[in-house]
Amino acid sequence: MNAATLQSYIGGRWIGKEANAPLHGALNGSVIYHTHAETIDFDEAITYGRKTGVPALMKLDFQTRAQRLKALAFYLMERKEELYKISHLTGATRPDSWVDVEGGIGTLFAYASMGGRELPSSNVLHEGPAMALGKRGGFAGTHILVPRGGLAVHINAFNFPIWGLLEKFAPSFLAAMPCIGKPATATSYLTEALVRMIHDSGLLPEGALQLVIGSTGDLLDRLQGHDVVTFTGSADTAAKLRSNKNLIANSVPFTAEADSLNCAILAPDVTPDDPEFDLFVKEVAREMTTKAGQKCTAVRRIIVPRNQVDAVSERLRARLSKVVVGDPSVEGVRMGALASYDQVRDVTERVAMLAKDNEIVYGANDGFKPVGEGAHNGAFFSPTLILCREPLKNNAVHDVEAFGPVSTLMAYDGIDEALDLAARGKGSLVSTLVTREPAIAAYAVPIAAASHGRVHILDAEASVDSTGHGSPLPQLKHGGPGRAGGGEELGGIRAVKHFLQRAAVQGSPTMLSAVTGEYVRGGAVQESDVHPFRKYFEDLKIGDSLLTHRRTVSEADIVNFGGVSGDYFYMHFDEIAAKDTQFGKRIAHGYFVLSAAAGLFVSPAPGPVLANYGLDNLRFVAPVAIGDTIRARLTAKRKVDRNRKDDRGVGQGVVAWDVQVTNQNDELVASYDILTLVQKRTTDA
Amino acid sequence: MNAATLQSYIGGRWIGKEANAPLHGALNGSVIYHTHAETIDFDEAITYGRKTGVPALMKLDFQTRAQRLKALAFYLMERKEELYKISHLTGATRPDSWVDVEGGIGTLFAYASMGGRELPSSNVLHEGPAMALGKRGGFAGTHILVPRGGLAVHINAFNFPIWGLLEKFAPSFLAAMPCIGKPATATSYLTEALVRMIHDSGLLPEGALQLVIGSTGDLLDRLQGHDVVTFTGSADTAAKLRSNKNLIANSVPFTAEADSLNCAILAPDVTPDDPEFDLFVKEVAREMTTKAGQKCTAVRRIIVPRNQVDAVSERLRARLSKVVVGDPSVEGVRMGALASYDQVRDVTERVAMLAKDNEIVYGANDGFKPVGEGAHNGAFFSPTLILCREPLKNNAVHDVEAFGPVSTLMAYDGIDEALDLAARGKGSLVSTLVTREPAIAAYAVPIAAASHGRVHILDAEASVDSTGHGSPLPQLKHGGPGRAGGGEELGGIRAVKHFLQRAAVQGSPTMLSAVTGEYVRGGAVQESDVHPFRKYFEDLKIGDSLLTHRRTVSEADIVNFGGVSGDYFYMHFDEIAAKDTQFGKRIAHGYFVLSAAAGLFVSPAPGPVLANYGLDNLRFVAPVAIGDTIRARLTAKRKVDRNRKDDRGVGQGVVAWDVQVTNQNDELVASYDILTLVQKRTTDA
Repeated sequence: MNAATLQSYIGGRWIGKEANAPLHGALNGSVIYHTHAETIDFDEAITYGRKTGVPALMKLDFQTRAQRLKALAFYLMERKEELYKISHLTGATRPDSWVDVEGGIGTLFAYASMGGRELPSSNVLHEGPAMALGKRGGFAGTHILVPRGGLAVHINAFNFPIWGLLEKFAPSFLAAMPCIGKPATATSYLTEALVRMIHDSGLLPEGALQLVIGSTGDLLDRLQGHDVVTFTGSADTAAKLRSNKNLIANSVPFTAEADSLNCAILAPDVTPDDPEFDLFVKEVAREMTTKAGQKCTAVRRIIVPRNQVDAVSERLRARLSKVVVGDPSVEGVRMGALASYDQVRDVTERVAMLAKDNEIVYGANDGFKPVGEGAHNGAFFSPTLILCREPLKNNAVHDVEAFGPVSTLMAYDGIDEALDLAARGKGSLVSTLVTREPAIAAYAVPIAAASHGRVHILDAEASVDSTGHGSPLPQLKHGGPGRAGGGEELGGIRAVKHFLQRAAVQGSPTMLSAVTGEYVRGGAVQESDVHPFRKYFEDLKIGDSLLTHRRTVSEADIVNFGGVSGDYFYMHFDEIAAKDTQFGKRIAHGYFVLSAAAGLFVSPAPGPVLANYGLDNLRFVAPVAIGDTIRARLTAKRKVDRNRKDDRGVGQGVVAWDVQVTNQNDELVASYDILTLVQKRTTDA
Repeated sequence: MNAATLQSYIGGRWIGKEANAPLHGALNGSVIYHTHAETIDFDEAITYGRKTGVPALMKLDFQTRAQRLKALAFYLMERKEELYKISHLTGATRPDSWVDVEGGIGTLFAYASMGGRELPSSNVLHEGPAMALGKRGGFAGTHILVPRGGLAVHINAFNFPIWGLLEKFAPSFLAAMPCIGKPATATSYLTEALVRMIHDSGLLPEGALQLVIGSTGDLLDRLQGHDVVTFTGSADTAAKLRSNKNLIANSVPFTAEADSLNCAILAPDVTPDDPEFDLFVKEVAREMTTKAGQKCTAVRRIIVPRNQVDAVSERLRARLSKVVVGDPSVEGVRMGALASYDQVRDVTERVAMLAKDNEIVYGANDGFKPVGEGAHNGAFFSPTLILCREPLKNNAVHDVEAFGPVSTLMAYDGIDEALDLAARGKGSLVSTLVTREPAIAAYAVPIAAASHGRVHILDAEASVDSTGHGSPLPQLKHGGPGRAGGGEELGGIRAVKHFLQRAAVQGSPTMLSAVTGEYVRGGAVQESDVHPFRKYFEDLKIGDSLLTHRRTVSEADIVNFGGVSGDYFYMHFDEIAAKDTQFGKRIAHGYFVLSAAAGLFVSPAPGPVLANYGLDNLRFVAPVAIGDTIRARLTAKRKVDRNRKDDRGVGQGVVAWDVQVTNQNDELVASYDILTLVQKRTTDA
């Protein structure tokens, strides 16, 4: 193999011709790449991001950025085999690479989809809720989230060169932040290949993504308060970066996701005859060997009832002994290499620390010999199981992390002790609880949740679909307290919000409507001769409003509505019992009020409003009695253009309408939002 | 006055007999209190909080803690005059003290109310949304928030000795965190009086609130990852504390709210003849003089169109010249003293820095003489207005903060330049924009929001109710990016969440239901012969469920429902037009499906279900056509016990029900939650 020189992508061009440090392949130790010798001008990188990247991203809106992510995900998925090929050099098996390559691309798909569903077609995310702040209706408050106008610096670990960048890039890109990615040097060749592919796609605005191969130099010293730094790696490095004087002086948000001593707990109710016992053993063995145990989320501590320790130990040993370790291109190999020699040295040292007062029940002495040509020069390490019978008296097992296929089995007496042991990790990314009893989960999970970013409950019911202990999902928060870094990543749109700036906004409802792009009650409305339901999506304006004619509610309405619905609840039909209620008399059905309001504001002939697909926040504020006269006000509240068409090619957008039903005294009786699809005038948009 | 020695409240007892440093009254410089000489054992404080405070708080739940807050607020409100009396010594006028005293107590009321409305009657807050994570229904995910099991250390500034503690105490108490309050020493006597009052109330569980008078010693070095530190004060001190090695090593969350150079912008559309011009001048003058300008939120920069600078300057001078400064107990005094001599020295120095290249247009030379006996020894400072005509060329006006009644008027050309000047504060707590034009607000506010924690839009419509530029409200976020500290406080229940730990939870729907206390779809349900609507609140269990009988929907139903509702939409009534829709035929009204479902699951006779007061998240998932047969499943989803009774003394709780309407093929056609009030069996609970 030709040991090429990697390049950084800075200021709109690829930098690096002269070779610097060699990078070694994990499988046989050969030199496969070099970093580049040229130093990076970080002032240039930052200026490029601010002057070129920010304006280019702000020209798009949340919806169009989500569409770019989707297109990018498709583009990468078509070329995934190129990435798998390079990933092989990191020592990964095909399933290991799947997590990195397709897990990473899948995260783009997920954020494209969540962004499309939950974000507006503008650059102001109205978080709300809008609320009145005075008695005369002139003043209200709400919250918006806006792009920060700064850069996101993403510093990543060596174990996920693709997923590591993409899971941070996706939400920060949605948030309109230009990114500077800095992968760990050891496997930076895979990230470089990814970034090259992304740039070749031409799908990103200029300045949206830069890449640093090698050191970050003085990059962090140049950041400002509207920038953001994320870090994945060791707790020590996290602490060092977090102490950076400039980051502190400017309150630059810094998010860390650090390795932690994650655990799996076998609850006291599970016996070796239960299917959950096998699930536990399988899950632990898989977590120990996937990615050769080089996952921040891997199970490091196996916490089992004292009377089950030997049974678990025996079954784990049996499983581990079947794991063939070696070059993943060899048929039958189930576990690959560590990422580098440095890692082998590090893991060896830490196993020695863990074994000092404990027993190694499975490990290198059990005939470990990796298979494959040149494997004796590769960075291989045997699956290693340590047994600690007195974990309350041993600090090392809760503190020393061997970042490889290494885990410690430990005994507990009673669920509270198990939870105490779990908490001794001082904050972890994830724990798994294997139990058959909902009551045990109900007790244990909230306690475990205080020190874990994610809790995975495994039983036979869950096992058919479980995504496993070790897999962060785009929809769920990743990151734990304390030792795990205290950060939050992923977790759906939460992650996008971490890259936006939240501001409270106060003002008149008219002003808040203008700022948020959503009608705020009490704000100015526009009324015209054209029914709002007869306007195409493009023509409809926030605040377009209709005050309907009136309808007097009679006893006949109640009787008829009972007949149609079958709802003969005493409040509507039993004069005697209704006297005893808070209202003191019969009242109309709430759903009658809702239905009558629809009858008041409907525009019956075919028109641009294609469907009413839902309704939110309905509150029956006051009763409607016989003789009351109601009317409705319908106001266009929110428009989202997802650039979508229906099956017949008709362009459409989502419109939410504010509905207020009032009585003859102008008192609000019912309040809700209805959700509609509205046709576009121009269907080729 | 007898200069008493203040005491700390640590480990369940008051500490401090020997006098240490003297504290001076602001009005005449006399010694009014001493700090105590005894050193505090912070190990004791922490152990007491962890061993006594945490368990005592966890014995309550969110709802009962909200009730304690409310009781405490009433208790303090009855005794507010004692606090006003002491507040006078800080140099505050009655309106100044109102912000601190009643603003603080009002924050307790607000959090009691928001907690009661939005939090569960348990210690697990189900944030959701619960979502399926597999195709076979066995695995789902969601998010919960739980108490962290640690302590909250609240370090506060001298300017709000009461509000400063209470606005942080309220949300952290709701989150079940024992607090250690550390007020700034200069005005700690007022906080001590408050904490004494709180302890005398007997309303808080033991260990819930400790007080540190004097230095925090090694307190921060002893904290762990599940603790939290909040800080309000100068940016320099914030940076120093944030760099604490122990806080960084353990990822202890640290929130800072620092002084910043907040601004008020007069938009280009406002002329001296508009009422908004006067509103602008009034707002700025009030912000300069309230609390003698000693507010983190005070207007420090007055940004006005170049052609309005002289008009604004003139009107501001006229207003400031009418502000009588002196001992607030003297009739007619409108502005009091700075909190201490140290502050006078500090403000004097900074005014000199600001005045170096700028003009003082109103200030000490304009015949400043505070009124009141001994006022010549008091910490008084004249309102001071500086004028900077070239603010793009002057860094000091955007960087040097004189924490007193001091503000700089500056000129801009064009709204973009105004926004650029605003951003030069490098992150502020709040900005005010005075404009008459919604379009200007829509353009400017999202840009300002990127560098301000709050944006206040003022016009004639808003002015009738506006709470003003300087007032943080419990419902709205307080805290800004960058120089303002990068933190978030208040903002409704968001603030409580900052003191909780968020965890993702994955497992079978049955397990998630058990953990969250909320029914998750797909989880196990209980069915019995008793209709769930006939069970009292106490007897009802999450998962209690009813699968109703069926109903075949006929054309007559559509016709009748149209007649009752008045809704003759073509999709239900026009065979010709309905053929052209995505459904290809007439379908039943969505609200008919909703009403018919209610008819299926209603239990008509009087029973424990008192009212259906609302409905959330309704989605019409699939159409119901003529001939389809529907049924509903009703499942108890969520119970909240607010310990409330209705007017007649009948105890009741809130129950949300999950409703799924399906068709003859078991396809979901409509999905929603209904909200009900359910009577308790025991009404004297």
